[in-house]
Amino acid sequence: MRIVIIGGGPGGYVAAIRAAQLGAEVTLIEDKYLGGTCLNIGCIPTKVLLYTTDLIDVLENDAKEMGIIVSGYEADWSKLQKRKKKIVKKLVSGVSGLFENNNVTTVTGKGSFLNDHQILVKSKNGDGSLAKESIIDFDFAIIATGSKPIMIPIPGIDLPGVITSEEALSLDSVPESLCIIGGGVIGCEFASVYHAFGCKVTIIEMLPDIVAVMDHDIAKPLKDKFAKEGIEIFTSTKVGSIQKTNEGLSVKTSSTDGEKSFLSEKVLVSVGRKPVIDALSLTKVAIETEAGAIKVNKNMRTNIENIYAVGDCNGGVMLAHVASSEGIVAAESIMGKKSNIDFRTIPYCVYTKPEMAGVGMTEAQAKAKGYDVKTVITPMYINSKAMIMGETTGIIKYIADATTGEILGLHMAGPRATDLIVEGALAIRLEATIDEIISTIHAHPTVGEALLEAAHAVHGDAIHLMK
Amino acid sequence: MRIVIIGGGPGGYVAAIRAAQLGAEVTLIEDKYLGGTCLNIGCIPTKVLLYTTDLIDVLENDAKEMGIIVSGYEADWSKLQKRKKKIVKKLVSGVSGLFENNNVTTVTGKGSFLNDHQILVKSKNGDGSLAKESIIDFDFAIIATGSKPIMIPIPGIDLPGVITSEEALSLDSVPESLCIIGGGVIGCEFASVYHAFGCKVTIIEMLPDIVAVMDHDIAKPLKDKFAKEGIEIFTSTKVGSIQKTNEGLSVKTSSTDGEKSFLSEKVLVSVGRKPVIDALSLTKVAIETEAGAIKVNKNMRTNIENIYAVGDCNGGVMLAHVASSEGIVAAESIMGKKSNIDFRTIPYCVYTKPEMAGVGMTEAQAKAKGYDVKTVITPMYINSKAMIMGETTGIIKYIADATTGEILGLHMAGPRATDLIVEGALAIRLEATIDEIISTIHAHPTVGEALLEAAHAVHGDAIHLMK
Repeated sequence: MRIVIIGGGPGGYVAAIRAAQLGAEVTLIEDKYLGGTCLNIGCIPTKVLLYTTDLIDVLENDAKEMGIIVSGYEADWSKLQKRKKKIVKKLVSGVSGLFENNNVTTVTGKGSFLNDHQILVKSKNGDGSLAKESIIDFDFAIIATGSKPIMIPIPGIDLPGVITSEEALSLDSVPESLCIIGGGVIGCEFASVYHAFGCKVTIIEMLPDIVAVMDHDIAKPLKDKFAKEGIEIFTSTKVGSIQKTNEGLSVKTSSTDGEKSFLSEKVLVSVGRKPVIDALSLTKVAIETEAGAIKVNKNMRTNIENIYAVGDCNGGVMLAHVASSEGIVAAESIMGKKSNIDFRTIPYCVYTKPEMAGVGMTEAQAKAKGYDVKTVITPMYINSKAMIMGETTGIIKYIADATTGEILGLHMAGPRATDLIVEGALAIRLEATIDEIISTIHAHPTVGEALLEAAHAVHGDAIHLMK
Repeated sequence: MRIVIIGGGPGGYVAAIRAAQLGAEVTLIEDKYLGGTCLNIGCIPTKVLLYTTDLIDVLENDAKEMGIIVSGYEADWSKLQKRKKKIVKKLVSGVSGLFENNNVTTVTGKGSFLNDHQILVKSKNGDGSLAKESIIDFDFAIIATGSKPIMIPIPGIDLPGVITSEEALSLDSVPESLCIIGGGVIGCEFASVYHAFGCKVTIIEMLPDIVAVMDHDIAKPLKDKFAKEGIEIFTSTKVGSIQKTNEGLSVKTSSTDGEKSFLSEKVLVSVGRKPVIDALSLTKVAIETEAGAIKVNKNMRTNIENIYAVGDCNGGVMLAHVASSEGIVAAESIMGKKSNIDFRTIPYCVYTKPEMAGVGMTEAQAKAKGYDVKTVITPMYINSKAMIMGETTGIIKYIADATTGEILGLHMAGPRATDLIVEGALAIRLEATIDEIISTIHAHPTVGEALLEAAHAVHGDAIHLMK
């Protein structure tokens, strides 16, 4: 079975390895970055920056209290940039190694369909001229071309100094001030990073709240922390234009409070991402799209029998682990194996401090679906490990079916939230009830105990909460 | 319903609150420490010391690599002692507040049985003389008197400078050298703490391996780290005596390698704990004991209909969260509520770096029970978040039923292991299979992904492991 995969990100490379494991002859076409956005200019490098951001926060706010007297420290942006590159390089070479180990062939270039069994690959020289052209025959193809940042069509969006997350990862130096248009996950993560490195950060969000992808209660601890740190947030605020002035870039906004302008050295646009599908010549094989994304069924198959699409390009949830899961589903489906990944279990994570994580339905989603829900919110400050860590900012929120007690959603902010969400995901997977969490012993003293305590609180009988 | 509880540790105080929630009139007798060993001289204070230990490790080994140039720092033992006291005080006063809130009455003193419906409480003055005596009537009693360190009967065990974990928590200053007799959880945790504060640490363990409570593969990463740091470990080594010399305390040992002696300023004895039941006058009510512990049935009831025993004093697993769970079981059982806590789900945690955690059966236990097991061990270094955290030392080990794929045990060493074990505990609770872990989406990049990858590895098809 010859499978060709276009795109070497977490959707494509995982599909490639899984297909190869199942005996396929796999060729992966990647234009630029083996490992895709995630490894090169997304998840991984941001988390490298954020981990150091965390450490700065500990040194700044907690070390002394914890008995460590630091006489001085310098947060060295260029050293951190080197670390970022080193880790990215290591992970990318890891993918290369795995490809070799699994006999996956890599072809460098841009792939586009000639027909439903052939892809044309064009590679370019450094000057943009055509270096090489080849045609690859396939039995099955998997499109995994990912996404790119959306640039809002406003005057000034092309000005120098207006950047996307890609450039924000690699600025030569830390700007004095940064205006972030879009307070979603990416916007908030960069706000944390640049604030820690001494930059004055302002967030402008069009929606009524930041991090709108999470349950609406979950962002509050982060908002409180941002406010305390002097990161200003303007919600329900629309950006009209960006202008260059002698003092920097001026972002003009409007809201019910009237018009405002924000002056900053750089402007980060993080309003979302859109599928990258323009160069695929999809029309040559009549692959259906919808709202700019490739349409797929639950096996990730497009309307064309032997062509699949996984990850950000198919318009689903744009997260690396979703792409990888879809990659596995596509590879297994092609190789005749029934895949049973449960897409109700997608965790959403934000790597700020406090970390945020959620899985299953938000309260709003559960109500919209007609569930009679029982919810509870418990504070992290009752958790002894959080106290020991000096990280008592946070909450746990369960959304349960009021009748059956089935856990519909678990959302949290607090230390280790991005890892603790594993319990929520497994609970959703197994349709666990609140009582099943309660009857599971949670170790003391751990942050994880907070999940048990909150489950008790659903019944109104938490041990460590006042009546 | 009048319930009297003897002992205010995590078994007793949780039982008290739960019983009060269910409508009982609760009196709790505590001689010394509300919150018990756990809050005052156990779990909580050790974890306060260990969290700072972790931070020292980061400053010493990781900060520079992460882009933070620390010009100097001092780990201040006395400041850390203050923090420890502050946190303990806060948590103890939290318990007091919860008692008030739940109308639990506290009586200070030592309780002993007069008969099966009366307890005598004696409180003492500072000079040891009797201050007050009173008799409390009860319908039900719960014994939750905990445990205390075992002192091995060898010459020199009473010498000044030979200490238990209680004193090790509160030494006025950091000794130059410390010989730890007993390389279990407590021994290893203190080894980490004192090493971080510049003390030369040696561990002597009678068994063939340290941390014998965990699956035998799990301690290896910690042993490697200890070795790298210069913490020496001598296993299968028996201590014969301790002698005072001009240079310090000399611990005389024997093993198949012959006799050795270890010189150190202090000697910590951490060979285990034993139930505290001597002062209870158990014989007056003919409460049965076995091997020095109170015998109980699965509802925590003793042989006497209306007397229960929870936590370390009943000879079960000596962990705070087990005591609390048993406290809930006892309280609910007394109040006529069927409790369904699943004691197969007890997590075992060690708060060293790497953290260690396990739940369910070890490989040896599963084999001893006759299971046909399938096991896998995957390394933490393939996990991208662990790489970002600079904590790639660790492993994940699943023990699954070879036929059904049911997870019998999950054991791990690595970052956040003590919290990630929540997934294993819920898996055991719900009798989940390896395939159910595989079909649950794990967020990228998180340490939790390592649990997914290891589950794939059980089938031999991990994505990120070479074939």
